[in-house]
Amino acid sequence: MSIDMWLFFAIGLGVVSLGFALYLYAWVNRQDAGGARGQQIAGYIQDGARAYLAKLYGTLAVLVVVLGVLIALIFSLDMLESVKAHQLVGCKKPLEGVWTALAFVAGSACSGLAGYLGMSIAVRANLRAAVAAKVGLNPAFKVAFYAGAVLGMAMVGTAVIGISVIYLFTRDPEIILGFSLGASAMALLAKAGGGIFTKTADIAADLVGKVEAGIPEDDPRNPAVIADNVGDNVGDVAGMGADIFDSYVASAVAAMILGVGVGRDTANPEFYVVFPLVLCAVGMLASFIGIQFVRVGKNGKPGAALNSGTVITCVIFGVLATLLVLAGGYNLGVLIATISGLVIAVLIGFCTDYFTNDERRPVQQVAAMSKSGSAITIITGLSYGLISVVPSMIGIVIATLVSYFSAEAFGISGIYGIGIAAVGMLSITSVIVSADAYGPIVDNAKGIAEMSNMGHEVVERCDTLDSAGNTAKAITKGFAISAAALTVLALFAAYGEVLQGLGLPLKMDLQSPLVLGGVLLGATCPPVFSALLMLAVTKNAFLMIEEIRAQFRAKPGILKGTEIPDYARCVSIASAGALSSLALPAVIAVIIPLAVGLLLGTDALGGFLGGSIFTGVIFAMFMSNAGGLWDNGKKFIEAGHHGGPGSDAHKAAVVGDTVGDPFKDTAGPSINTLITVMSLVSSLFAPVIAALSLANFIK
Amino acid sequence: MSIDMWLFFAIGLGVVSLGFALYLYAWVNRQDAGGARGQQIAGYIQDGARAYLAKLYGTLAVLVVVLGVLIALIFSLDMLESVKAHQLVGCKKPLEGVWTALAFVAGSACSGLAGYLGMSIAVRANLRAAVAAKVGLNPAFKVAFYAGAVLGMAMVGTAVIGISVIYLFTRDPEIILGFSLGASAMALLAKAGGGIFTKTADIAADLVGKVEAGIPEDDPRNPAVIADNVGDNVGDVAGMGADIFDSYVASAVAAMILGVGVGRDTANPEFYVVFPLVLCAVGMLASFIGIQFVRVGKNGKPGAALNSGTVITCVIFGVLATLLVLAGGYNLGVLIATISGLVIAVLIGFCTDYFTNDERRPVQQVAAMSKSGSAITIITGLSYGLISVVPSMIGIVIATLVSYFSAEAFGISGIYGIGIAAVGMLSITSVIVSADAYGPIVDNAKGIAEMSNMGHEVVERCDTLDSAGNTAKAITKGFAISAAALTVLALFAAYGEVLQGLGLPLKMDLQSPLVLGGVLLGATCPPVFSALLMLAVTKNAFLMIEEIRAQFRAKPGILKGTEIPDYARCVSIASAGALSSLALPAVIAVIIPLAVGLLLGTDALGGFLGGSIFTGVIFAMFMSNAGGLWDNGKKFIEAGHHGGPGSDAHKAAVVGDTVGDPFKDTAGPSINTLITVMSLVSSLFAPVIAALSLANFIK
Repeated sequence: MSIDMWLFFAIGLGVVSLGFALYLYAWVNRQDAGGARGQQIAGYIQDGARAYLAKLYGTLAVLVVVLGVLIALIFSLDMLESVKAHQLVGCKKPLEGVWTALAFVAGSACSGLAGYLGMSIAVRANLRAAVAAKVGLNPAFKVAFYAGAVLGMAMVGTAVIGISVIYLFTRDPEIILGFSLGASAMALLAKAGGGIFTKTADIAADLVGKVEAGIPEDDPRNPAVIADNVGDNVGDVAGMGADIFDSYVASAVAAMILGVGVGRDTANPEFYVVFPLVLCAVGMLASFIGIQFVRVGKNGKPGAALNSGTVITCVIFGVLATLLVLAGGYNLGVLIATISGLVIAVLIGFCTDYFTNDERRPVQQVAAMSKSGSAITIITGLSYGLISVVPSMIGIVIATLVSYFSAEAFGISGIYGIGIAAVGMLSITSVIVSADAYGPIVDNAKGIAEMSNMGHEVVERCDTLDSAGNTAKAITKGFAISAAALTVLALFAAYGEVLQGLGLPLKMDLQSPLVLGGVLLGATCPPVFSALLMLAVTKNAFLMIEEIRAQFRAKPGILKGTEIPDYARCVSIASAGALSSLALPAVIAVIIPLAVGLLLGTDALGGFLGGSIFTGVIFAMFMSNAGGLWDNGKKFIEAGHHGGPGSDAHKAAVVGDTVGDPFKDTAGPSINTLITVMSLVSSLFAPVIAALSLANFIK
Repeated sequence: MSIDMWLFFAIGLGVVSLGFALYLYAWVNRQDAGGARGQQIAGYIQDGARAYLAKLYGTLAVLVVVLGVLIALIFSLDMLESVKAHQLVGCKKPLEGVWTALAFVAGSACSGLAGYLGMSIAVRANLRAAVAAKVGLNPAFKVAFYAGAVLGMAMVGTAVIGISVIYLFTRDPEIILGFSLGASAMALLAKAGGGIFTKTADIAADLVGKVEAGIPEDDPRNPAVIADNVGDNVGDVAGMGADIFDSYVASAVAAMILGVGVGRDTANPEFYVVFPLVLCAVGMLASFIGIQFVRVGKNGKPGAALNSGTVITCVIFGVLATLLVLAGGYNLGVLIATISGLVIAVLIGFCTDYFTNDERRPVQQVAAMSKSGSAITIITGLSYGLISVVPSMIGIVIATLVSYFSAEAFGISGIYGIGIAAVGMLSITSVIVSADAYGPIVDNAKGIAEMSNMGHEVVERCDTLDSAGNTAKAITKGFAISAAALTVLALFAAYGEVLQGLGLPLKMDLQSPLVLGGVLLGATCPPVFSALLMLAVTKNAFLMIEEIRAQFRAKPGILKGTEIPDYARCVSIASAGALSSLALPAVIAVIIPLAVGLLLGTDALGGFLGGSIFTGVIFAMFMSNAGGLWDNGKKFIEAGHHGGPGSDAHKAAVVGDTVGDPFKDTAGPSINTLITVMSLVSSLFAPVIAALSLANFIK
């Protein structure tokens, strides 16, 4: 097929995917919404979510306009005499700056649209899943999973349409970096901000509600309960969706840029550039089929249904990709890279599961150690969290080496192999996201069922659905982390390719002091970034705790159940705090790489990106896994071990869980976005940095 | 002066230093040991220390013999046909293997001797300082500081004598790698083992004594109290001494190896090899003078005395080094490197102080957050701990760049500049170590004064001396960490120089997948290593808690004060646990670099070493600073803030302090030793790895 045909193929499947998402949206929306009490509670959550989204999109709009103008302006710097003097081969023209700025706006708009669809159906599906649970497990599962699939399908659809259309018009993958940066800007706000929101509400609701006032979780008397429920959607639906959208686009762009070098001297130079999009399209096809297999039989297990959906999609994708490569007579090395990445991602998922599964030693050990008090719980959990990175890191190294050398063995650039492995992993994204977004929906459903007194059986069914979500999460999370790791490695390589295109081959020898300095500075960023997010959570939780206490004091009827608390105040504190706390972390993400590049040069900036990957991948896995470990350790004790709920061991485990909350839901998963933003900023502004850097004068 | 003259100069000053140490030993030993009750308590501590040292040196002896034979054997591998076939230029001869093995034995013996002298005087000086405190602050300070100086003087003396003698006979700095590895083997056992010992005893004594039995700290009824006091010496005297001995030797060796390349085409090729030893000798001279200034005037402050001793020694060293370089007409770039390193080390010390000083925001913020419970204390402390690495990392990068480019500006290898900066920093080691070893001595003195009822005034004076030790620690710690960081960077460069000498120039481009894989694997080691040490602490503390409870049950008279607990059992549990838990961490340190090198090649091994430095430096600083922060946060509350002792905030702060204990005294400070061992193993076995690596076949 011609290149244009492939692009239309991708766009076509993207439109189908988006259409499918809208169809599912309408289907879920048609389901029974039950009685007035449930609708009232769900209405509070919807209002809260709407308020948050309004603030989020408002902030995003400002950020996008400012950065968009900045991009267009900075590119016109290329016209300056000082820049021209360096005669960089591939220097941009101002028109390309405008294109890039437009692509940037489009990227955040596409991600925003997908997130909006996903969020607005999630906060409807929660109630409908609870109502459906009156009938049985299966109908409730269907509502929740299909609602999750809205996000999954909409995401990949808008992403592939956006990328393909831009490429169709510009034929320059570097302009798509702008699209990717737009997606990253959205991810930074939605994931890091959402992570701060959800944990602010969670910690505050628990500390004042459960500990001080002695009321149970998900109790409508708690002023923060709605913020807590909104937070689940904000963090785990909108945030997670934007995060994976970001990785998905970034992996495609990185591979496309690397494809330019691969195709340069071949008969069909654009083929390797477009091939990542073809893989994305094949992945969408595989997901359409795979999603059909996600069904709970009578008395079946929803957790198994979710996992088998993932595995089946992987298999279908593998078969389709093999057929494509064999039938088209394409490069076999690329196929091996794709498949090896996929296999290792699944293996990493199972390893992650080992460290967070309550049937395994780490969780049980943390639970047992809780008998000696919370300090020992913390030390043990931190330690196992650190150890848990070992299998994943080995897996990532193996995936890197296999995809690299299999591509090399078949005569094309090994780096392209790494990029393709990342795309391969992420091409089944829509199934992963569907299973992930299912989690907060059923979690909310359980809350609504409890708050509106739907009865013991319904709550129990929702609970079964909820724990299925947690089981599936281990695998999808391992998947997401390893895919993100390969993606940032591919972006790292793409940075080199961009410089190569400028006639400035990147020299990143660790024996160069500038590179070494860059690595050390880059390695410092992810830990500091995660620390800033965690401090934002504690600071905002502090404010919300004051608010809850003030409401209890001002309206004594709240605790008696005769007055309705002001839910909106808590939602507003969480929203405002989350977005305003992002200023400093955003500066790290955008300004620091520019500063390093301008001061120490492009080689040092390469080292900087490398350094951020080295610690970033480790901190992301460590924090996510330690958080999951503590969470399940607490649940293990709540299931009746070591004295059960209320025991000293349980109190210690609750401390562990609270520490783990911002680890696993705020800091850990946002690191990936940080690295992506830093890599994209570096690649995008490479020409300007190369021309203006102070290091030019040192040399 | 001729090279031999310089060597004799260094040896001579080494002998003077060692003699001075013995003189101070005798002087401290002559001081009044007071009454029977104090002698009895101190006797328990001495017995415990002796028991631990016997076990430590026994283990060391076994390790040294096994590794020594292994070294000799592996070097004879060079004679194999397969190795010869690679025709490595600088391949070792079997005789050099024997020399290296002997140097290895000598390195651990020298470190062991210095540690023995330091430990055995420390456990005598504690009692004598307490007795002297009856007279006044000043005599007590003198006893404790001079006892600390025994370790400081003995260390640098034995190290410089050892290195100089080996070089005098062999003229091959690579053989001194063996000496350095011997010192590292001792450091691994003494520092990591000592760190496990001391925190096992500390945590167990606190949890059962203070929390369960409700008896105060340092109460003789607690069976673990002696183990706790022994632990202070074991961790902070023997362990700290071996750790800095290790850095001191490693920095000298690294710079000497780098000096080979610098001198290669000059008129006096050996000068740059021997220059690091000359700097060490000058540093000893400066220390002799500087130590004379460490005096507490009437009503003076002991903390200021310690700090001014450090600063004065730095200044004297700077002046002497300048005179030396100017008078001798040596390279000015080297002088700038030395001095810039020294200045930045002091600045880093003050930055570290900011994050752990209770008059500054971070500590006060953690204390204030403790009102919301222990989980918030932990999150806040972790966050500030992570942020605290920023100034130090920037300082290290500046020191690296300045020392590199100042050397280059004067026409010699920039890498040598980095090596010299590390040697410059460490040349004032004996003052740093003296001030550091002073801490546990006065801490013990306070314990003995309390346990043997020496009266309120004596305890108070010991307390003043103790907090002076903590103040001084912030600066010496910052100093030690930055020196260690530059040392491992120099070792990293030395690895490249060794390979260069073999005719195999190191290519560590981060764009190579093998190098990248190496970096990712290397970056994983420090976190995992620290996690294993922390798990060892919790596991052993668990065992000791059982033992203490069993003693209380079996002998009810203990708590009434009518029966003496079995202190030796607790010491024995701590010793056995500490040393046996080191098996797995030691494997990481020795086997993993060999495995990476043999599988992925020497370039990947270079990446591996780099990766271990990147995360190692960050984790070491993060853990040390977070631990110090929590410790002082607790003390801040104990001083009467936020409800004071016994309040909820205090309970939360105690949890933070307990988590921080293994952070700052076990895991954090041991990472440096891990990296040193891995670097030395790699450099030492580089010829074998280069010849036998699997990567040879891939290429």
